Amino acid sequence: MNPLYTSLGTTIFETMSARARATGAINLGQGFPDGRGPEDVLAEAARALVEDSNQYPPMLGIPALREAVAAHYSVHQGLDLTPAEVVVTSGATEALAAAILALVSPGDEVVMFQPLYDAYWPLIVRAGGVPKLVRLEPPEWRITAKALSAVASARTKLVIVNSPLNPTATMASDAELALLADFCVAHDAIAICDEVWEHVVFDGRTHRSLIGLPGMRERTVKIGSAGKIFSLTGWKVGWMCAAPRIAAVLAKAHQFLTFTTPPNLQAAAAYGLGKDVAYFEGMRAAFQRSRDRLAAGLTGLGYAVLPSAATYFLSIDLDRSGVGMGDIAFCEWLVEEAGVASIPVSAFYVEAPVTNVVRLCFAKADATLDEALERMRVRP
Amino acid sequence: MNPLYTSLGTTIFETMSARARATGAINLGQGFPDGRGPEDVLAEAARALVEDSNQYPPMLGIPALREAVAAHYSVHQGLDLTPAEVVVTSGATEALAAAILALVSPGDEVVMFQPLYDAYWPLIVRAGGVPKLVRLEPPEWRITAKALSAVASARTKLVIVNSPLNPTATMASDAELALLADFCVAHDAIAICDEVWEHVVFDGRTHRSLIGLPGMRERTVKIGSAGKIFSLTGWKVGWMCAAPRIAAVLAKAHQFLTFTTPPNLQAAAAYGLGKDVAYFEGMRAAFQRSRDRLAAGLTGLGYAVLPSAATYFLSIDLDRSGVGMGDIAFCEWLVEEAGVASIPVSAFYVEAPVTNVVRLCFAKADATLDEALERMRVRP
Ligand SMILES: CSCCC(=O)C(=O)O
Ligand SMILES: CSCCC(=O)C(=O)O
Repeated sequence: MNPLYTSLGTTIFETMSARARATGAINLGQGFPDGRGPEDVLAEAARALVEDSNQYPPMLGIPALREAVAAHYSVHQGLDLTPAEVVVTSGATEALAAAILALVSPGDEVVMFQPLYDAYWPLIVRAGGVPKLVRLEPPEWRITAKALSAVASARTKLVIVNSPLNPTATMASDAELALLADFCVAHDAIAICDEVWEHVVFDGRTHRSLIGLPGMRERTVKIGSAGKIFSLTGWKVGWMCAAPRIAAVLAKAHQFLTFTTPPNLQAAAAYGLGKDVAYFEGMRAAFQRSRDRLAAGLTGLGYAVLPSAATYFLSIDLDRSGVGMGDIAFCEWLVEEAGVASIPVSAFYVEAPVTNVVRLCFAKADATLDEALERMRVRP
Repeated sequence: MNPLYTSLGTTIFETMSARARATGAINLGQGFPDGRGPEDVLAEAARALVEDSNQYPPMLGIPALREAVAAHYSVHQGLDLTPAEVVVTSGATEALAAAILALVSPGDEVVMFQPLYDAYWPLIVRAGGVPKLVRLEPPEWRITAKALSAVASARTKLVIVNSPLNPTATMASDAELALLADFCVAHDAIAICDEVWEHVVFDGRTHRSLIGLPGMRERTVKIGSAGKIFSLTGWKVGWMCAAPRIAAVLAKAHQFLTFTTPPNLQAAAAYGLGKDVAYFEGMRAAFQRSRDRLAAGLTGLGYAVLPSAATYFLSIDLDRSGVGMGDIAFCEWLVEEAGVASIPVSAFYVEAPVTNVVRLCFAKADATLDEALERMRVRP
């Protein structure tokens, strides 16, 4: 058995959700909304399931979805991707796995930023890559030129970028994007951009993809997720967008990871991506209201809430909240004593963790958030 | 980019299906039925989609499906697996990838039998394993003790077994299963058993899993597929069954490949696995009738048809059919000139291919088979 996996723990999201199921805690840990998702997208999935073929669709994805992804990014992000540059995957996790297995050769150095989504590090290591970690710190979590140059070498082959960034709820600034683009071009490195939160952005912000920057079109894998875009996290429909030279290699890895993705869910995602701008604005506004509700409630209880520009998450700073505990102890207390599951941000670090920040998911019904706040009236 | 993938071709199944779509050929290449699948299973999937949650289900699979898999194998194969030993995956391809990434360490030798399903070899190589190939030959395609001992070494860690075997449509005999079990026990090796065709068996045969043999329960990963069992190949719902010590490690790989699988399709698969024995017998009888229809038609046209004990496939022996061409040339002629797509069996060999056998999929409506036979009246 492979020693990486025998020594690896279960993902923190699953662990906390299992704790919540077992204890009856309100689950503000794993990032999923408790709404139903858009009814018309569900109806299209049900229609296609019953009326259309349920046999293998094309390995690269159904043409309608590949066209819809390209068109969607043209309308919403001003990008000029073609359908041929889209490879549909069974969720963004599969896209990450396929991209990493396809692009990493043993000994390649891969730049990653901590806090990092917990799939990145094991996938890079399993692929034979050598992680080069840049540590980001609260409250700004900013990438600096100095930190980047400290990890650069002649073996730098790949950079993994997550913007909007889970768990910090920050977005890469124009300056950071320019820095990353310069770095990739200078080192002839490919960027894998995990942009699953691209639509869940607040306060009028707009997402900018690294793939749109000069020199990046030919060296970027842009990963997206229908589950995140349509608040249907169980659907596991995602995609990778990349220039043909890269997409061809990504497809080779994808064909032996899942081969393809349920055609009815692909059809519904294709339909949904064509929804009007008002839908996406409404979705964002609803999550923003939930963010503000949880932030205000937590502030009222004396917690120091860090700003949340995007994602389903906000964080509290334990030090500034006057909580005399580390994040793991606090999350433990919160789930066991108060009955609210959360995620310790130290779980997103491979080494030298930030230990005073706890992530909470606000993508829940008002009543759920209010009940969680009620339970949090007790203090540790 | 990883050189394995830059040098790898597109899977033969996708290549031939794309050729069929482009030329209007009848597609008897890639293995998928053209029926709708069981209406009640489709209805349950549609119900769950619209009525139940579409958010992340548990990473190991929904409890109902894990229970249904264990119960199903108790009823149909007399096995005593527990739900805790079942890990749900996004199709059998993901199960293969997860099992191989989890169980192979660099330098481990992996015994595989040619002809082999085309995902095995690249996955083993990408995982750092060293393939040890045993070559099977028509018309019997049997595994011998001599061939097995020729590939054994102190580094033998894994054996990949596919029974019923795609593309040969044969099933491992009791003697072969005993040989494989002895081999695994003697070398302390784990068997990955790709049993996706376990229900599609003919002439009253029953499938026997290696996991049921003495000494194998603790060292076998049994892989199954709802898509194959319910003739819904696009669903991509599969599973791995293994003793807890192995299952725990498989789950670690699975969580970073797809994490989870659409909950409504899992619910429908759980429902379907509980259908009565008559359903499965009816499914088998229908495919058997199709097998016999295509076999009789081909024989009438002068082709030598090899026996088909299982799967959606039968093969023709070009040498004994008096066709003066190799399998690739014949498949090329068949798709371009006659308008029928098929699969050359040499595509299932990494080295020293058998070149006189061509696979045809009979899981099609009578009219489709008849039209294909009509088109095959011309001879090369
Ligand atoms: C695959 S479960 C993780 C979901 C998520 O994006 C999160 O909670 O951060
Ligand atoms: C993943 S496409 C291959 C389908 C199949 O099992 C076959 O045609 O052999």
